[in-house]
Amino acid sequence: MPFVNIAILEGHDRDYAQAVADSVNEAAITALDFPADDRYQLIQEYAPHALQLQTRTADRVMLHLVLRSGKTDEQKKAFYRRVTENLAARPGIDPHNVMITMTENNDIDWSFADGKASFLEG
Amino acid sequence: MPFVNIAILEGHDRDYAQAVADSVNEAAITALDFPADDRYQLIQEYAPHALQLQTRTADRVMLHLVLRSGKTDEQKKAFYRRVTENLAARPGIDPHNVMITMTENNDIDWSFADGKASFLEG
Amino acid sequence: MPFVNIAILEGHDRDYAQAVADSVNEAAITALDFPADDRYQLIQEYAPHALQLQTRTADRVMLHLVLRSGKTDEQKKAFYRRVTENLAARPGIDPHNVMITMTENNDIDWSFADGKASFLEG
Repeated sequence: MPFVNIAILEGHDRDYAQAVADSVNEAAITALDFPADDRYQLIQEYAPHALQLQTRTADRVMLHLVLRSGKTDEQKKAFYRRVTENLAARPGIDPHNVMITMTENNDIDWSFADGKASFLEG
Repeated sequence: MPFVNIAILEGHDRDYAQAVADSVNEAAITALDFPADDRYQLIQEYAPHALQLQTRTADRVMLHLVLRSGKTDEQKKAFYRRVTENLAARPGIDPHNVMITMTENNDIDWSFADGKASFLEG
Repeated sequence: MPFVNIAILEGHDRDYAQAVADSVNEAAITALDFPADDRYQLIQEYAPHALQLQTRTADRVMLHLVLRSGKTDEQKKAFYRRVTENLAARPGIDPHNVMITMTENNDIDWSFADGKASFLEG
């Protein structure tokens, strides 16, 4: 966990995409207290008209996380702060233009490998 | 809110994509009673074989909305009606070929800007 | 149901994508007990750096299913087993490199066609 969908604008290079992914991952591990080897990310590029964040036209990112229930409000607040700080530092995205939403599920809803319900079947 | 993922077929022009996005947004604001400046949309194009809506081969759209819990069944029904009416009018998609699903989350699960939990930290 | 998002690596041909889609669909219908004509799938291709499954570099797949609440843990476990067995057989993906997560919603949250809440308005 978590399963992270990252929407960025097209036209950037691979280093930009990797910087976004790294910044998001570091924030998830530190603020949401996930294991250091957690990394389940999909990065998708969009044309400007296909990534509509109200009327904002500057560089922007939209994140959707799926995670197990159990994280506290304080942890989620810390994640929002941390991920926007990280993205401002690298690759340099204005915190105003980062939108995040999360949905939760349960232990049974995860299989990380080998066709097992990882939290229940080890 | 809501966070709207829009899947359309490739091969259309940008006006088509914008018409779909506008039609979906208008329905969300009016039927689900969201603020007029709400607009959080990702539009993704798919090859026909990559957008499988049972066996339907005509022009088609699949929508996935993430929204806070609290909307009534009647509001959601009104949204389904309105969005298919809108899409039939512009860009002209048969209501039979519009598939929609929604998942809900909570106040803490949204950050629209500035690294804050928008519904809890203003 | 379910609404299935399938993330695969780019560089494969259409037969590969179709094999993945078929394998996932067969597992959903048999293990999760869905109707034979259920098929609501989006298949998206990603560059290797954009589909990050921990540090795994081999061919890999990430699945996200949205489905109504009500399926049992045993059904979900059976799905995890079945889908990885299917994908190993066709197109030949190591079960270790298949990651799956699910989120649930309710009766009102589905419209399969015609602007109706399909489970409530028939």
